[in-house]
Amino acid sequence: MSSANPLRDASDRRLPRIAGPSGLVIFGVTGDLSRKKLMPAVYDLANRGLLPPGFSLVGFARRDWADEDFAQVVHDSVKEHARTPFREEVWQQLSEGMRFVPGDFGDDQAFEKLRATVDELDKARGTGGNFAFYLSVPPKFFPSVVQQLKKHGLSDPPEGSWRRAVIEKPFGHDLASAQELNRVVHQVFRSAEVFRIDHYLGKETVQNILALRFANTMFEPLWNRSYVDHVQITMAEDIGIGGRAGYYDGIGAARDVIQNHLLQLLALTAMEEPSCFEATSLVQEKLKVLQAVRLPGDLGGHTVRGQYAHGWQGGEEVLGYLEEEGIDAKSRTDTYAAIKLGIDNRRWAGVPFYLRAGKRLGRRVTEIAVVFQRAPHSPFDNTATEELGQNALVIRVQPDEGVTIRFGSKVPGTSMEIRDVTMDFAYGESFTESSPEAYERLILDVLLGDANLFPRPQEVEESWRILDPIEEYWDRHGKPEQYTAGTWGPKAADEMLARDGRSWRRP
Amino acid sequence: MSSANPLRDASDRRLPRIAGPSGLVIFGVTGDLSRKKLMPAVYDLANRGLLPPGFSLVGFARRDWADEDFAQVVHDSVKEHARTPFREEVWQQLSEGMRFVPGDFGDDQAFEKLRATVDELDKARGTGGNFAFYLSVPPKFFPSVVQQLKKHGLSDPPEGSWRRAVIEKPFGHDLASAQELNRVVHQVFRSAEVFRIDHYLGKETVQNILALRFANTMFEPLWNRSYVDHVQITMAEDIGIGGRAGYYDGIGAARDVIQNHLLQLLALTAMEEPSCFEATSLVQEKLKVLQAVRLPGDLGGHTVRGQYAHGWQGGEEVLGYLEEEGIDAKSRTDTYAAIKLGIDNRRWAGVPFYLRAGKRLGRRVTEIAVVFQRAPHSPFDNTATEELGQNALVIRVQPDEGVTIRFGSKVPGTSMEIRDVTMDFAYGESFTESSPEAYERLILDVLLGDANLFPRPQEVEESWRILDPIEEYWDRHGKPEQYTAGTWGPKAADEMLARDGRSWRRP
Repeated sequence: MSSANPLRDASDRRLPRIAGPSGLVIFGVTGDLSRKKLMPAVYDLANRGLLPPGFSLVGFARRDWADEDFAQVVHDSVKEHARTPFREEVWQQLSEGMRFVPGDFGDDQAFEKLRATVDELDKARGTGGNFAFYLSVPPKFFPSVVQQLKKHGLSDPPEGSWRRAVIEKPFGHDLASAQELNRVVHQVFRSAEVFRIDHYLGKETVQNILALRFANTMFEPLWNRSYVDHVQITMAEDIGIGGRAGYYDGIGAARDVIQNHLLQLLALTAMEEPSCFEATSLVQEKLKVLQAVRLPGDLGGHTVRGQYAHGWQGGEEVLGYLEEEGIDAKSRTDTYAAIKLGIDNRRWAGVPFYLRAGKRLGRRVTEIAVVFQRAPHSPFDNTATEELGQNALVIRVQPDEGVTIRFGSKVPGTSMEIRDVTMDFAYGESFTESSPEAYERLILDVLLGDANLFPRPQEVEESWRILDPIEEYWDRHGKPEQYTAGTWGPKAADEMLARDGRSWRRP
Repeated sequence: MSSANPLRDASDRRLPRIAGPSGLVIFGVTGDLSRKKLMPAVYDLANRGLLPPGFSLVGFARRDWADEDFAQVVHDSVKEHARTPFREEVWQQLSEGMRFVPGDFGDDQAFEKLRATVDELDKARGTGGNFAFYLSVPPKFFPSVVQQLKKHGLSDPPEGSWRRAVIEKPFGHDLASAQELNRVVHQVFRSAEVFRIDHYLGKETVQNILALRFANTMFEPLWNRSYVDHVQITMAEDIGIGGRAGYYDGIGAARDVIQNHLLQLLALTAMEEPSCFEATSLVQEKLKVLQAVRLPGDLGGHTVRGQYAHGWQGGEEVLGYLEEEGIDAKSRTDTYAAIKLGIDNRRWAGVPFYLRAGKRLGRRVTEIAVVFQRAPHSPFDNTATEELGQNALVIRVQPDEGVTIRFGSKVPGTSMEIRDVTMDFAYGESFTESSPEAYERLILDVLLGDANLFPRPQEVEESWRILDPIEEYWDRHGKPEQYTAGTWGPKAADEMLARDGRSWRRP
């Protein structure tokens, strides 16, 4: 890890981590992700001084663009989506390193031109042979792209430099397809050269789970079956499927976000303390948790599917899922999924983890709620604690990033009455530092070769091992329950918790 | 415990607790405490509907007042100091029960008149023979007042009714004088009939220590030597001695507030869970803690005295203690005291409790800070946690009543850096209910016969047992260190903590 700034000591992690000489090649550069997230993230990183002066960005797509056309597209995307202010001098330096290679994935000439471009950048910009290839393309194209990279010598790093591949989800649609995908990618790239993006892991609040648990004394002693009653992990969206019918139908909520985001949140919440934050330690602990996840014996009683029906959201009338453009009127795709999981280890035995994800719910919120047991004995009168709920620690992943603790406090007055109150920590109020976008953090980590925040193939496969039997059960049994758009999902989900004597939080 | 309102079930503690037929006799009714606290508290209780319709208030003092003059004094005090709005109809009903008895404490005729007044009120107002005698007088008058009450039959309740004595601090100035005081009072009143006022126990935030610890699951598991590094209990005042030279000189900070308020806060913070909140259970646990308090072997190194010197406070130049009117220029009275105590039991062995109290300090604040140990292992780089302090839970007793937790959180940015943040619960923001003044709560409890929030004589004596050796040591060794008014006390106090590798909070 070299540093562009001679005043900085690279071993001091409190100073900004700065990428060494390198470049980024994006396949699928005309797509939404590239325009809304990747290009702005590259600019923001440059603007924060975290990229080397000669950093280069290469676009590859089926467009008849010159370098200048590509630079204009990046320029527009940065103007619209970047988080940091536009500075002409930063843009100038960055745009000088932009190149475009037209072609499709079967086109040998295009890949030869890509190779020549990479070589030219090494000479002209000092990228030192270090390139990351970002596959922002549908998974069906992964095999051709990686094989072309190999065929044209792009996947082999020159002596002393590196080549890396960056892959976006979906990492398959079940265990078998994920294994096949991993096999194909690893034919070309070594394990340490492949970076799988789960952008949730790039979020500040998700990384803060680790800081919260392991840099503090107060929380970890409570973080186990002796004190925790259950955990709720919620990812609620208020939007519908938008223009993603083609991708979403047949996939559904569980495959789209539970298999990756929610199971990663579960792993970070439940894992043991790693001995350090080097990637292999972290992966090892996450993997141990995922391996210990136990499916409920009765999948019918402990999983719920839903599909949003016509309703109202934010004052607007919205279509039901089956009425959306491009969706088969008989589709059984889940736009809501809730699952009860157990974790078979000493820390968590008997503590249910309830996961739920859905579209067109009451509001947009992702949170992890650790709900504690009631006190084992109360010296107070029953009536004094009648309005007292269970203690809870809630990590708000988005929006309103922060942490809330709910606990009981005496109500002011001349009698002893105890009621729930909350104490709150909000990122926005506590820090003047602005949060980098998840993709900024992740792209920088790819360039630094820091794999901490990227799921490893074993984790991906373990997550499918958890989800596959549920999807198979759903395939064989009935169809999703309709829920009105703008509500909190199907009745069956409420009933599932009610049978356990619990209820979902209304965040 | 009867209730004036037939709609209320007296066994339901969530409904307001309402005093039954009764009256209050105040000795020393012309003093500051009576005018600023007791009279307004009586009115506020009446206004909140917590006093019976026939409630009566009798003043006793050396003044040539008629009942109407007394009522006018109460009226003015209520107008100036009451917390609740003035309502004419409440005042009318209350003032009809006001009587004044002129005389001094040696005057048999006056006490005969008091007896006749009490009898008259029983007939006219239905006070039912139930009277509390509030001794808001210097302790030297206690023997004459209680003996007069006995001599004139006022301390003996008629069949089926009650008589109670209320005593204000100071409860003596050392163990021997406290024992003598208790002996004198108990010659006349039975133990259960005597209510010692430590107004700190009437504060909402102090009662909330019990709710916080024992109605919740989250805090008690951390509340011991395995996780707590040390506890700091601070009572800082910004004012000087004001007009209290005569009382304060020769007494000092340790006797004035550490012996009572701070040791009671220590007891509530450190005690084991009582099996219920009946007074004897609570006292038993507080007493156990006080009995387990261990003085440091080296009193010179672990106690500190200070005396404020001339300085600036709130933009105004203020006198030093020795320059105050009525203070001997050679006085060695402590206006600041800091003490390190240990608690010899399984829960707290090895955890120091640092107590400090002082006048003319940086600002007015009373708080209990439970400071936790650092995490036993950190998977983070040293540099990542360089700015991370120790976790702390702080109960703010006054002002800005509430609870704050300090913990480490990831600083937003592309590297892992962890810094202290706080989460906060504030009474003012969380409850619409207004906090009753401590004296309201305590007077109501006297009328209800609820002794929960009153220190028992054994506690008072245990507290003197703790303080006496310190005062004796101070008598024999040197004099207090001068500190500039408006600062945080003498240097020796900072050095005392520094020797333990700790530092005082700057609240």
